[in-house]
Amino acid sequence: MRVLGLDPGSRRTGYGIVEKCGNRLTAVAYGCLVPPAQADLPRRLAFLATGTAEIIERHAPDCVVVEEAFYHENVRSTLVLGQVRGALIVTAVQREAEVHEYSPREIKLSVTGNGGASKDQVGFMVKRLLALTEDPQVDAADALAGAICHLNRSALSVPRRRGSAARQLEALIARSAR
Amino acid sequence: MRVLGLDPGSRRTGYGIVEKCGNRLTAVAYGCLVPPAQADLPRRLAFLATGTAEIIERHAPDCVVVEEAFYHENVRSTLVLGQVRGALIVTAVQREAEVHEYSPREIKLSVTGNGGASKDQVGFMVKRLLALTEDPQVDAADALAGAICHLNRSALSVPRRRGSAARQLEALIARSAR
Repeated sequence: MRVLGLDPGSRRTGYGIVEKCGNRLTAVAYGCLVPPAQADLPRRLAFLATGTAEIIERHAPDCVVVEEAFYHENVRSTLVLGQVRGALIVTAVQREAEVHEYSPREIKLSVTGNGGASKDQVGFMVKRLLALTEDPQVDAADALAGAICHLNRSALSVPRRRGSAARQLEALIARSAR
Repeated sequence: MRVLGLDPGSRRTGYGIVEKCGNRLTAVAYGCLVPPAQADLPRRLAFLATGTAEIIERHAPDCVVVEEAFYHENVRSTLVLGQVRGALIVTAVQREAEVHEYSPREIKLSVTGNGGASKDQVGFMVKRLLALTEDPQVDAADALAGAICHLNRSALSVPRRRGSAARQLEALIARSAR
């Protein structure tokens, strides 16, 4: 099972693809999407959506994990963050990837065993769990942590991609076999 | 010049295409996109984005107008509204349409002469300015009002579509001519 984690931000969106084979977690790809600083918000949204679409098409994740938004920031930044989230979520759904959301607390708990862990602790555990040789940038680490959280939670589930050609075929076969 | 106005909402997004020829305004199309009530937010976003993409492809507006969001609602609905806006804006930018934003006050002022006009007044003036034979639904009326506002504001500008093949070609020719 392969999961894309996203840590949405209008200035910088972290991403991380994690694959689980047996009990082993591997970082397939991770990094940050950074729109041109001088771009207005619509163009930043388009940059982030296009970048996310390319990542989904290149790495074919089974699902996408987006960290739940903070509601306690100021209202203007909540609205901007909402717009980034909307742009990313719609990109995922239009590419047949399921979207899952976890709170920052759930993600930290799953990765470090402490729901109130610091950014440093999250980065340390992500590096360790994925056996990375370098420290991931903080937004990429948060994105990888989201992906790890989902893989831990759905340890028993099987990969599935809604609406993919293979699944549509399966459904047709199942129906015609009745 | 042809403008698509959008009145974003997760339960119902109004749209309205208005064309200006000389001094005459015509409603080309208008209505509401209403996602299935039982769909979760990611699927509602995808429904609204796909519907908006179809409208843009069918009617080829020169630009898209989105009403600026209220910041004074509760934070949760601000975040949801932000996600809807992000999904719609990214859909427009990816289809080479410029995005413009106006405050509710600017739109009301432009359409009714009163920045504090009621919904009824806006609907009445939209119906009158576009010579509609029926009362438009309230979200469609707001979307049409946004489009009219932009056409009034840019009375002297010419249509342009950033990034279109024709414009890229023009830019290349201009560069090679230097």
